[in-house]
Amino acid sequence: MDISLKSPYTFVMASAIVLLSGGQDSATCLAIAQTEVEKIHCVSFNYGQRHVIELESAKKLATLAGATLQEVDVRFLGELSNSSLVSATKPIIAQPGRLPSTFVPGRNALFLTIAAMIAYEKKAEVIYTGVCQTDYSGYPDCREAFISSQESTLNLAMEGKLSIKTPLMHLTKADTVIKMKELDRMAWYGSTHTCYEGKQPACGRCPACRLRLKGFKEAGERDPLPYQT
Amino acid sequence: MDISLKSPYTFVMASAIVLLSGGQDSATCLAIAQTEVEKIHCVSFNYGQRHVIELESAKKLATLAGATLQEVDVRFLGELSNSSLVSATKPIIAQPGRLPSTFVPGRNALFLTIAAMIAYEKKAEVIYTGVCQTDYSGYPDCREAFISSQESTLNLAMEGKLSIKTPLMHLTKADTVIKMKELDRMAWYGSTHTCYEGKQPACGRCPACRLRLKGFKEAGERDPLPYQT
Repeated sequence: MDISLKSPYTFVMASAIVLLSGGQDSATCLAIAQTEVEKIHCVSFNYGQRHVIELESAKKLATLAGATLQEVDVRFLGELSNSSLVSATKPIIAQPGRLPSTFVPGRNALFLTIAAMIAYEKKAEVIYTGVCQTDYSGYPDCREAFISSQESTLNLAMEGKLSIKTPLMHLTKADTVIKMKELDRMAWYGSTHTCYEGKQPACGRCPACRLRLKGFKEAGERDPLPYQT
Repeated sequence: MDISLKSPYTFVMASAIVLLSGGQDSATCLAIAQTEVEKIHCVSFNYGQRHVIELESAKKLATLAGATLQEVDVRFLGELSNSSLVSATKPIIAQPGRLPSTFVPGRNALFLTIAAMIAYEKKAEVIYTGVCQTDYSGYPDCREAFISSQESTLNLAMEGKLSIKTPLMHLTKADTVIKMKELDRMAWYGSTHTCYEGKQPACGRCPACRLRLKGFKEAGERDPLPYQT
């Protein structure tokens, strides 16, 4: 499907749920969904993440897209997981051959299941998620095989015909930036949040900032987000 | 596997999660797990159910089994679902050819996903759930096909080898009562809760009480739970 169409959009679906973390990938995913779907309902998760700024970014992005936004309270994750992503005190550690300490096991399974429950209520046919096999980082629930299995499971659970769309699955960070440029939504990136350190302006030095900046460099584009350096 | 063994138990697994709603089926499931697993961690869900008494029953049952219990706050379900099971005001309606109004779409998918996340943390190999295809009531996420798919999905999500055990899947209510008698745990039923009306003593007249009493009658056993009538 050609998603580089600008205007007028040819809507192929009436209603969709977009998982919106407030990061670069979910912003791009939202922009893509906007070209394919008439009515978008965004879902973000308050899981006691280190940086509430992510949820603020999600709100700004939903407003930019003219979409509704629902924030779901899943702070019970903080009790379940030892991950540094939900802890303000645990350091972020990356060790070769081991899952990064930011891994919350089963997080995407949980988020997609809740999104499907919301889709059922809203009569939405599709869930969009910005998961990406390319920058996999060892997260097993970003893989296409998982997404496909999760889709079948949810349809069995609810006797539904829901589909899970992952338009970024095989894109590199640079491809994602180029896609956003094609969609004429580069300015949205100014409202996203990526920095693991939760800094605003972004630190530009943490692994997440570096991966992001590398993508922009490779795409030959300038990141509209303010950086400290 | 012969689960009618009484004592000494032959433990085939070191550690398991048991989903404990506080009802008759989950109590039986816990009793069965007790004969197969050395260490049991129970999980119950506070989803803003009509009757908090269910959670009290879960606590009593976990204590009887000498198991630990974790109550997970999933009250966001109340915002998501129109089901009468999570509403104190909506009446319970059963209409032929339609799902009962107590159906919370995707509920078992959600509960099993959270249980799997807990299992990951606790290094448990198995999740026990009392879902039952026999008294299916039209709930698609009680079927064996769903459970099997959910198990595969969770293992893909977490690169795990978790198994979901559903010892009641093909038992009638009477079979369940007989199983509990064999396990010498009939007294536990006195701490369970079934009544849809949330009454204590149980009303004996609502559809849930009637189904329960019918099972005891067919099994030729007396229900130790106090009833109003």
